[in-house]
Amino acid sequence: MDRIKRNERLGAMSRILTASPNRIFTLSHFCELFGTAKSTISEDIDLLSATFDQFELGKITTVAGAAGGVVYRAAMTQRAKDELLLSLSQRLSQPGRLLPGGFLYTSDVMSDCDAAQGMGRILAERFYEARPDFVLTMETKGIPLAMMTAHHMDIPLVIARRDSRAYEGPAVKINFVAGGSGERIETMALSRRAVKPGQRALLIDDFMKGGGTLRGMVDLMREFSVQVAGIGVAIVTAQPEKKRVEGAQALLILQSTDEESRSAQVTPAE
Amino acid sequence: MDRIKRNERLGAMSRILTASPNRIFTLSHFCELFGTAKSTISEDIDLLSATFDQFELGKITTVAGAAGGVVYRAAMTQRAKDELLLSLSQRLSQPGRLLPGGFLYTSDVMSDCDAAQGMGRILAERFYEARPDFVLTMETKGIPLAMMTAHHMDIPLVIARRDSRAYEGPAVKINFVAGGSGERIETMALSRRAVKPGQRALLIDDFMKGGGTLRGMVDLMREFSVQVAGIGVAIVTAQPEKKRVEGAQALLILQSTDEESRSAQVTPAE
Repeated sequence: MDRIKRNERLGAMSRILTASPNRIFTLSHFCELFGTAKSTISEDIDLLSATFDQFELGKITTVAGAAGGVVYRAAMTQRAKDELLLSLSQRLSQPGRLLPGGFLYTSDVMSDCDAAQGMGRILAERFYEARPDFVLTMETKGIPLAMMTAHHMDIPLVIARRDSRAYEGPAVKINFVAGGSGERIETMALSRRAVKPGQRALLIDDFMKGGGTLRGMVDLMREFSVQVAGIGVAIVTAQPEKKRVEGAQALLILQSTDEESRSAQVTPAE
Repeated sequence: MDRIKRNERLGAMSRILTASPNRIFTLSHFCELFGTAKSTISEDIDLLSATFDQFELGKITTVAGAAGGVVYRAAMTQRAKDELLLSLSQRLSQPGRLLPGGFLYTSDVMSDCDAAQGMGRILAERFYEARPDFVLTMETKGIPLAMMTAHHMDIPLVIARRDSRAYEGPAVKINFVAGGSGERIETMALSRRAVKPGQRALLIDDFMKGGGTLRGMVDLMREFSVQVAGIGVAIVTAQPEKKRVEGAQALLILQSTDEESRSAQVTPAE
């Protein structure tokens, strides 16, 4: 094999690191892959890191210690975050999105891969320090966002169901107060084997009005002796101010709705 | 700004192209970004493409013509595909996964980001030529796979629901024969505004036994005057041989189940 040039190594390292965000790769891994000395790989990392900074492509950093190595995190600049959240706000504020009963149609935005990826990057960054072991969401609309958040944190995704299906095995079921206009009691279920006692959960959902579903997720985690490390939601309603859970971090705020024009006013949360 | 070196350009291009698979970037895009001549960018692309080949990181190719440019596809080598499907088979064949009633517990594998990403890459590659406009899945367990497939094809994800919820707006509802042991009639719904007549759908699901759910998805698409461009599933059962839909491409086969050891035999599909 020909000696591998620096520009080839940087092209390959960029792809390998960014395909697995928040995963630590040892320097030895790249030494073996490229047949190169550790000092050379260190220089490569410094160069790549500076390039990522310059073109705002995320952060490449080295982690010291026995379990050390190099890691990529898809951190966005404040400007990129602002742009994303503003464009999502505008999309969600388009006339015609408001459905009878005051519901906002969000399915297309919530299952848009780029939107889910962008919001997932922001939420991942907010919760790195909380060190969750997995992301929990309640089916259905929050799954793409929860999945992208889990991907960017390099932790598993766990999905709670509306009912305990036969193919999930022994499950824990709880009731929760589903919000919206008329309150009603619904059921949430999670397979016994999905999580372990003592783990830490990051709760992610697409929408929070009263906070009933997230309250249910908190209660569900208590049944599993799992600690809640954080709560992140895509859209939170401005009203009611008082929610059933506290400390949720939202990306967008549904400020108001106008039944006349069938539209809503959505703004970035900060 | 200092002149940007080739190794910096390759590091950045690698990240930009692979973050948006199957999306065409014009050469001018990179010329502007790096302040470099087109001929230089062409050389960069050739180098990066050769590096991706050498380290089996996917395919970078140039597309000729007015709408041309450079595009990344996450194509896997046959060896990488074989390894992934074998490791998934082994994981799904672990003792204890078989639940009462003969159901296989797959939730953890289906919502594993790496597994969904890997299977999504394989399915995307199989269906590039079918040129679907969107990926359709039926909630819930197939969503991560469907999403990753959509991401790698750079097309939207559309999720059919079990019932038509108020916040989805006007919806088309169909009934379908849900399989498993006892057959029963279930409902599948999709918002009117989710897709447009004349589009082409790629149907993705996590599991197929009788094919009832996929048959329902085919029928649903007919109601929308949408053509089915292909069908992909993660796991198909060997029995019954006759399914309610034809031509589905599966990645894994559930060959047999053993209630005694509570395990199943799963193998790669090819």
